[in-house]
Amino acid sequence: MAAHRLLIRGGIVFPFDGSRRVHDPGSVLVEGREIVAVGGVEELDADPRAEGAVLHDASGHAVLPGLHNCHLHSGLLRGTAESKSLWEWLRDYVDPAHRALTPEIAEAASLLAYTESVLAGTTSVMDMWRFMDGSARVAERVGIRATLVPYVADMPGYDYFETLDTNRELLEEHRESADGRVRAWVGIEHLLYCTEEACRAAVALAEEFDTGLHTHSSETTYEVEQSLERFGRRPIAEFEHRGMLGPRTVVAHCVWVDRAEIETLASTGTGVAHCPCSNMKLSSGAAPIGTLRRAGVKLGIGSDGEKENNTLDLFDEIKFASLLEKVTTLDPTAGDPWDVLEMATTGGARVLGIDRVTGSLETGKRADVVTVALDGLHTTPVLHGRDFNVAAHLAFSSSGADVRDVWVDGRHLVAGAVPQFVSVDEVRATAQAAAEELFERRASLTPAPMP
Amino acid sequence: MAAHRLLIRGGIVFPFDGSRRVHDPGSVLVEGREIVAVGGVEELDADPRAEGAVLHDASGHAVLPGLHNCHLHSGLLRGTAESKSLWEWLRDYVDPAHRALTPEIAEAASLLAYTESVLAGTTSVMDMWRFMDGSARVAERVGIRATLVPYVADMPGYDYFETLDTNRELLEEHRESADGRVRAWVGIEHLLYCTEEACRAAVALAEEFDTGLHTHSSETTYEVEQSLERFGRRPIAEFEHRGMLGPRTVVAHCVWVDRAEIETLASTGTGVAHCPCSNMKLSSGAAPIGTLRRAGVKLGIGSDGEKENNTLDLFDEIKFASLLEKVTTLDPTAGDPWDVLEMATTGGARVLGIDRVTGSLETGKRADVVTVALDGLHTTPVLHGRDFNVAAHLAFSSSGADVRDVWVDGRHLVAGAVPQFVSVDEVRATAQAAAEELFERRASLTPAPMP
Repeated sequence: MAAHRLLIRGGIVFPFDGSRRVHDPGSVLVEGREIVAVGGVEELDADPRAEGAVLHDASGHAVLPGLHNCHLHSGLLRGTAESKSLWEWLRDYVDPAHRALTPEIAEAASLLAYTESVLAGTTSVMDMWRFMDGSARVAERVGIRATLVPYVADMPGYDYFETLDTNRELLEEHRESADGRVRAWVGIEHLLYCTEEACRAAVALAEEFDTGLHTHSSETTYEVEQSLERFGRRPIAEFEHRGMLGPRTVVAHCVWVDRAEIETLASTGTGVAHCPCSNMKLSSGAAPIGTLRRAGVKLGIGSDGEKENNTLDLFDEIKFASLLEKVTTLDPTAGDPWDVLEMATTGGARVLGIDRVTGSLETGKRADVVTVALDGLHTTPVLHGRDFNVAAHLAFSSSGADVRDVWVDGRHLVAGAVPQFVSVDEVRATAQAAAEELFERRASLTPAPMP
Repeated sequence: MAAHRLLIRGGIVFPFDGSRRVHDPGSVLVEGREIVAVGGVEELDADPRAEGAVLHDASGHAVLPGLHNCHLHSGLLRGTAESKSLWEWLRDYVDPAHRALTPEIAEAASLLAYTESVLAGTTSVMDMWRFMDGSARVAERVGIRATLVPYVADMPGYDYFETLDTNRELLEEHRESADGRVRAWVGIEHLLYCTEEACRAAVALAEEFDTGLHTHSSETTYEVEQSLERFGRRPIAEFEHRGMLGPRTVVAHCVWVDRAEIETLASTGTGVAHCPCSNMKLSSGAAPIGTLRRAGVKLGIGSDGEKENNTLDLFDEIKFASLLEKVTTLDPTAGDPWDVLEMATTGGARVLGIDRVTGSLETGKRADVVTVALDGLHTTPVLHGRDFNVAAHLAFSSSGADVRDVWVDGRHLVAGAVPQFVSVDEVRATAQAAAEELFERRASLTPAPMP
């Protein structure tokens, strides 16, 4: 039997195929889980393979590759710990919540994060979280691509985190599952939470399972100072010393990296997950993203978690990434909308090592496709040709609320802004109940915060 | 006959009445165009005046005073001129569009801006624009509060702007119209576009009509340098010298103000419209908003225009205001969600000089009320009491797309996210046609931009 064919027809198609061309109007032809053609609407109407295909009318919409969120934590703390200094916030809010977490609550948090993500046009997430068996189940159910990375730590005081043993168990089960959409990597929570032995064992574990490594680094000046004091090296240099960097390693943040560290990131092929909202909101600073880009460092975008941002909407993140680059350089040509959109699509796929499979609309890639409505007043007017303004709309005016349809591997995960494999009401109720339980458990574990 | 009564019942009510209390659940009782009671749901259920009132179920929603956009330009250039330096952008894009503008196109731009605003929960705008007779008509039709300020300039090369004579005509017609919802002020485009004589005449005109003054200032370092070079004073000092500052003057931007200028703004009672997105996007810089607040300067928030931002969604602006303050100070306690929400509500009303009428939910004020849905996954969980997180949701997770109902003067302008006095389809079609005409006219006036 021939595979199911689908023609996403008549939208403004952004292939992000390395060029900056747009098919306006254009179409995407899908067969089974793959894209078999991308081009102008008339060209694809005339393609014999379009005959008999299911037609999806994308007129009045932008058609993009799905977005990649390269750094995320599932969670349920949204809005509960604001305007705290980083260490007060960790000590009084985040750590006690970790101590109160159960596998069931953790699974509810991933259900919320992945459903929220896919509704906002994110087709792939890298999630650092705990009890990730549940995350794998939820990712498979929602249909999103997910790279699962346990929070591993071995320094005293961080006993509630995952261990390399539980990371190994996750790899045994989910090195690759859900038809390749769910993958497990090896996680190292933080340089200051992990011994050198743990880092070296993490590298060996990733090699053993032929998979990637994810960690945080260089988020605050405090961390850099501590690294210099404890190890005599800055954090990226210390990670290099521990053998952690390379083309299958992704480091989140990289706000406070010096010239030598940037060269190390570039020469080792290490990817960076840029998290502008989180870095601004936690008052960490602004990553030198233009310098990283010019140095050839692989760049993707991350939302960080619901407790840092507080949304997981990558359209928000795209606008913040651009504007933060513009204001920190005082150069209006920095943070170009195309650069930032590429960072959220092809760039993200490259960082996650899945750019041969997804990240652009090209023949042979998986059909990870998103439509974004352009009929809102906030995206009016829509101009074509000489005055084309839709790339700028996507970068600066659109939001996750404008996403209408999402496919991953050709599966229609979101249709008309409604998720097809989970119900929003169920996800909300499950997450709400889990959050209430988490806060009850946390209150019983620790003294209540000062009133 | 008794005035129409309305009970907005059972939401999470944020009065912004100077305290930071919340009625959860709470209600707002409206009679005619005024708020007659605000309080807990049971208290207002027991109020004899609630009997027979029309019931609006606000459960699952936040209930806020309408937002005030203290600096806006109507326009149709959204997304058409990106990543340009300020002066290239002005010369090649903005000025030619001004030359091509007609009264009909200008009116369509205001129709778009005001409808987009009210749909996103903005109940009051200060708009600096041209041919503002049309803007007044449109504001009355949409039902929004509008303070209309013509772009006045008299220096050579700026002949396409308005003049003090056309400003006078607008004042004669619209000093106060639409039952007080539409007001005209006196506008001065820019220090570098106006002679000292024009500034002094503007002050006299504002005094003659007992009204306010609005201008831009201290947006870029270039402007400060030019002001020092041409006048021997920094811009705010020069405006003070020209007699322009005072409690009924509002200055947009104020990015590059020094300590003495901040003291001048505070001591004269001059209001500041903070435009964080615009300042970031045009690479102008970050206004020292914490210092301005601590000095006692009246602060409101502005979106600036569709060509600078590119949305007019003040929820976006609130998040940017907070995060920009956090990252520029590297102090996570800066940019507190409550401070920024107050700046967008009561603060904005104070800046616009309408805080006796609106800006908070208090007995005796006009019923300018907004409901914001909290049932999105991006605002899940909703926690009450000890772990209350809804102020943070409003500041960091909600967007204009979550606004469901809007009243101004007790009139139900937006019901269930649908505007009641205009149709979104009509507004979009009108704006689209006007934009296409504007770009045609602009192309015929000037050489096309370099490809």
